[in-house]
Amino acid sequence: MTLRQEADAIIHAALRAAQPDAAVRRALRALPDCRGRLLLVAAGKAAWQMAAAAQAALGGRIADGVVITKYGHARGALDGLRIFEGGHPVPDANCFAATDAAMALARGAGPEDMVLFLLSGGGSALFEKPLLPPQELASLTSALLACGADIVEINTVRKRLSAVKGGRFAQLCAPARVFSVILSDVLGDPPDMIASGPAYPDSSTSEQAQAIAEKYALPLSGQARALLREETPKRLENVQTHIAGSVRQLCKAACEQCRALGYRPLVLTDSLRCQAREAGSFLASVAAYHQDSAESLAVIAGGETVVRVTGTGLGGRNQELALAAAPGIAGFRDTALFSVGSDGTDGPTDAAGGYVDGRTASALRACGLRVDDVLADNDAYHALEAVGGLIVTGATGTNVNDLTVLLIRR
Amino acid sequence: MTLRQEADAIIHAALRAAQPDAAVRRALRALPDCRGRLLLVAAGKAAWQMAAAAQAALGGRIADGVVITKYGHARGALDGLRIFEGGHPVPDANCFAATDAAMALARGAGPEDMVLFLLSGGGSALFEKPLLPPQELASLTSALLACGADIVEINTVRKRLSAVKGGRFAQLCAPARVFSVILSDVLGDPPDMIASGPAYPDSSTSEQAQAIAEKYALPLSGQARALLREETPKRLENVQTHIAGSVRQLCKAACEQCRALGYRPLVLTDSLRCQAREAGSFLASVAAYHQDSAESLAVIAGGETVVRVTGTGLGGRNQELALAAAPGIAGFRDTALFSVGSDGTDGPTDAAGGYVDGRTASALRACGLRVDDVLADNDAYHALEAVGGLIVTGATGTNVNDLTVLLIRR
Repeated sequence: MTLRQEADAIIHAALRAAQPDAAVRRALRALPDCRGRLLLVAAGKAAWQMAAAAQAALGGRIADGVVITKYGHARGALDGLRIFEGGHPVPDANCFAATDAAMALARGAGPEDMVLFLLSGGGSALFEKPLLPPQELASLTSALLACGADIVEINTVRKRLSAVKGGRFAQLCAPARVFSVILSDVLGDPPDMIASGPAYPDSSTSEQAQAIAEKYALPLSGQARALLREETPKRLENVQTHIAGSVRQLCKAACEQCRALGYRPLVLTDSLRCQAREAGSFLASVAAYHQDSAESLAVIAGGETVVRVTGTGLGGRNQELALAAAPGIAGFRDTALFSVGSDGTDGPTDAAGGYVDGRTASALRACGLRVDDVLADNDAYHALEAVGGLIVTGATGTNVNDLTVLLIRR
Repeated sequence: MTLRQEADAIIHAALRAAQPDAAVRRALRALPDCRGRLLLVAAGKAAWQMAAAAQAALGGRIADGVVITKYGHARGALDGLRIFEGGHPVPDANCFAATDAAMALARGAGPEDMVLFLLSGGGSALFEKPLLPPQELASLTSALLACGADIVEINTVRKRLSAVKGGRFAQLCAPARVFSVILSDVLGDPPDMIASGPAYPDSSTSEQAQAIAEKYALPLSGQARALLREETPKRLENVQTHIAGSVRQLCKAACEQCRALGYRPLVLTDSLRCQAREAGSFLASVAAYHQDSAESLAVIAGGETVVRVTGTGLGGRNQELALAAAPGIAGFRDTALFSVGSDGTDGPTDAAGGYVDGRTASALRACGLRVDDVLADNDAYHALEAVGGLIVTGATGTNVNDLTVLLIRR
């Protein structure tokens, strides 16, 4: 196998593990026994795939269920499940009606029953039942955005104006138990932030919500004021949570595939946030240090870097990261670095990311390209294209941040 | 011990190991037996300290010796050694005379003798004997600089115009053996580049030198032309080389001290070159990933980052790196990051570097400081000063790049 083939195998394995169905299948291995009815509620952009995977895994065991996804995201009927489509990113009446149906299911659950709750990106809008007139909620949100409140502040207020957010959906399910499976694209995976945590204890307080309203002098109705005083659940004894698909899973799957290929894997981080090209330079210096290594080594980093746009070229953060590493690993034997976005789309390009190895720098030179110039123009796409360094996967059906791997084969 | 005390202990141990005397003592442990005379030649800015350390270690075994350092860098007589001071960075007649003395010593060495060759930064100017009139060499160098030749090209030409560079000094020493100890401040330590490698096989060729002369249409005398055709040694059977003080040593010493303090040490690199603040952000994300670690972990990086100057504040690359990590490790328990310059001087400040831990971000906030603003103004010094995060060592007597360490104590 060439290094490039190994890279492709690692990417394939990581993306497969980050698929909603694989993530759900994996999580369901921990599903406890349930003597009563098994009820399914799935919400988010991947709700249909997650529900389909659960149905495939659990067969006829699901007694009833509600699936709420974005318009155009349902892919057909699922036996015994009611499927809804609604508005995203702005929730509409269909979202509210679907959430109502899920809430009715929750209220009807008994102590022997179990609610399988499948949550994915977009759940915040799609799974919503406002406790205020939707118009009032919308204008409050606009007011918060206009006065520069951050996302934590906005969520702290909004959780209290919803019948399902901030752990309240899980509260409705009690005394039934909730088995919650979360597919996350949020770095660091704080479960009370993902879709505002319908089935997770809320870490924010009523006091904080009122302080935010005061700080920004929000125009509140009497009803809104009363809602902000109501506390969200701080403990949820009936919930078991699985972060099933996340950048951590992406890294873990890459790790396992690297090991299978004979590398000693080392995960540095799953929350990379620095500038893409600087991460590339950093990892190239890691490659330099380990050239004397006696064993094959794979250094893995997950996360989401940023690009400083200074030019008018074509590229994405993963392509920039990889390209920036090329000069630093120039001439190194059996050394490669690649970086891919798990959704298969890196920047506004048809590539998922970029691949470079010890020969890339000289190949670029032979094409008359200087890495510094290319980076200054943010044109990594065309440079990598010229040397066969683009990674193209097509749309992958998942979105759990990026994966970067440095391979040193010995 | 507090984390800060552990940091200080690691810094102390690393700087001690990178001292010229410690480096020489360590290297001399590998000195082979010598039946004949032991002759010493020391050249560079640390020549006096290196010679003094060798004398202290070897006692009366040194039969004769020449020490060549920069004006003002000799600190007194050394028993049995001739001490010269000369011009740096531009060599003068004193350098040539001193080098003449060293060459005479080399020529007089027999097959049973051993030349202990101690080389440090500045050796390129201080240890020189031109084969052309010095005037002609100086104008050739100026011509090369003016036409944009890079340092590798300049050295490729200059090695051939010198009686000692490019391995020729070691050739002069034959049939005596040469034990060469190099104290390096050059990233990556290419021994034929340090002071143009007087005792190291030359990797550049006569052909390359002539091509460079042609490429830049250098105005060459007949004598210079003839010299460029003469090949430098490609093999030196009589030389044993020790890179004794270098950033690698700095990392290794830090590694050992971390282990002694109960940490599992992991050296990522010794050639960090990226932007200081991005390295800080990268390492903070490494800290985040390893918060769940069951064992204490020390992540070590050596090298020399760069600062992008956008403001008018006071600081240095090590202070920026540390400060930039503060938000990323905010609230982390028993987690600290520090970065120091081995010469004790970080930027134009009296600090060697900076220290931050999980409490630094909130301490900065309490002082009304925002890290982003501070970095935009390049004012890390004052921010770290306000929260007790400056590391002050004073001048250290060595210069082998920077050391950055992330500590996670469990």
